[in-house]
Amino acid sequence: MEKWRRSERVSVITKCLLENPNKLLSLNYFTNLFQSAKSSISEDISIIRDTFQKFGYGKIETLTGAGGGVMFYPEIKPEDKNEFIKAIAMRLQDPKRILPGGFIYMADIIFDARVAQKVGEIFAQHFMAEAPQYVVTMETKGIPPALMTAKALNVPLVVIRDGSRVTEGTSVSLNYVTGSSKQIRTMTLSRRALPLESRVVIIDDFMKAGGTAKGMVDLLSEFKSHVLGIGVLVDTGFPERKLVNNYCSLLKLLSVDEQNKRIAVEPTGRISE
Amino acid sequence: MEKWRRSERVSVITKCLLENPNKLLSLNYFTNLFQSAKSSISEDISIIRDTFQKFGYGKIETLTGAGGGVMFYPEIKPEDKNEFIKAIAMRLQDPKRILPGGFIYMADIIFDARVAQKVGEIFAQHFMAEAPQYVVTMETKGIPPALMTAKALNVPLVVIRDGSRVTEGTSVSLNYVTGSSKQIRTMTLSRRALPLESRVVIIDDFMKAGGTAKGMVDLLSEFKSHVLGIGVLVDTGFPERKLVNNYCSLLKLLSVDEQNKRIAVEPTGRISE
Repeated sequence: MEKWRRSERVSVITKCLLENPNKLLSLNYFTNLFQSAKSSISEDISIIRDTFQKFGYGKIETLTGAGGGVMFYPEIKPEDKNEFIKAIAMRLQDPKRILPGGFIYMADIIFDARVAQKVGEIFAQHFMAEAPQYVVTMETKGIPPALMTAKALNVPLVVIRDGSRVTEGTSVSLNYVTGSSKQIRTMTLSRRALPLESRVVIIDDFMKAGGTAKGMVDLLSEFKSHVLGIGVLVDTGFPERKLVNNYCSLLKLLSVDEQNKRIAVEPTGRISE
Repeated sequence: MEKWRRSERVSVITKCLLENPNKLLSLNYFTNLFQSAKSSISEDISIIRDTFQKFGYGKIETLTGAGGGVMFYPEIKPEDKNEFIKAIAMRLQDPKRILPGGFIYMADIIFDARVAQKVGEIFAQHFMAEAPQYVVTMETKGIPPALMTAKALNVPLVVIRDGSRVTEGTSVSLNYVTGSSKQIRTMTLSRRALPLESRVVIIDDFMKAGGTAKGMVDLLSEFKSHVLGIGVLVDTGFPERKLVNNYCSLLKLLSVDEQNKRIAVEPTGRISE
């Protein structure tokens, strides 16, 4: 029987906790794995807990009793969060991103898994107290941040499809008007994708007038969902009034000046700790 | 000046390594963080390396010299991989998944972040030796496994869009014929999304005849890409011959019997260790 040193156990337990955020891990799993006394494992965990707290990695809670275990709630330090959001703002301001029509190219940032992971952790931390059961987004660019939010919250992701050609059994479709370009579009969600009366948060990459977000809220009302909040990576300064209210964004796109090739974007500071 | 214990340092270094797979982390970063001698940090790392090796978590390599540092190559133990793939097969066999037309409902599995993460780690391990520079997929369901593969490989994800209405500057579009239903469709990739002559792997959720994969390969040839391989979560037993050759799948869908409500799916065992 191999005997494990404290630092070895700490490394393994750290890994298990990090890979299972918001999930109760049984202490027995670890006592069996290491053939160690519960007291040793508890001490390992308290070392990790104190270290994580000192470094601002998040909270670790131990639940005692028969169903006891340990749970990790990831957090990001306010200064790390601000630095991260500022770095995204810097990247977004690159004038090479300007596309015809005053759009800006964001795909490289949206599909950057590290960015998505951090955005997901920020939104998870923001919405965690509301105990959402599902994260909902709309294809395509909403998926990376929404998937990572779902991962950090340890809940399933539900993806609303663009259009109506969906081969996923009975589904609910909604025609909606995009808030800024006033186009009529359709979004569809399979009936089996989301149980009725679920508690959900909506995560998306971008919001201009909020027409898509409003459409998602309306579609979710067909599922009697409780929409706890909406988180978007970037919203725009104009129009100031959006079609939805209860949303927060990490960044605000203030202006895109095609002629002088200048993009103004700034952190909103609207995400709570 | 706070003095850190070995187990505290090990917990922090474990976290940094896990969150930065396939990325060189400087030893100086850790000596500064902990105000510790390089020898202590090196010993911390060798403890983590040995522990990770014993538990089959992956390889940790230390590079000495001025540009020295430490690098983590994640791995999944063969038995864990097999168990994971078998568990997906079990979930897929649920007859409630049968949709009209002999399709099966997979969205809940595809959009499960934990599943995607593991699939991504498996494909990353499989393709790592080829040193891909980009992971390429096509929206929508390819995104979760592809994003997680990109994360594990520490490379960017490139998403080919379905259709031609893409507002991302100059782009290349390709009309292709879906291999099984013989529909003509369009896929589009923005010029700026992928530099010419990149080394890429294609990751997707599903392959039937391989028409979409073939389309992606053809579109990528416009970017002079070197396609190192194709990984799909599920392919079908029929048609046996696909329109592409160099692909591997984790699971094979053998049959969907709508009348008797039976789905046959099995692990392919074709993913190398």
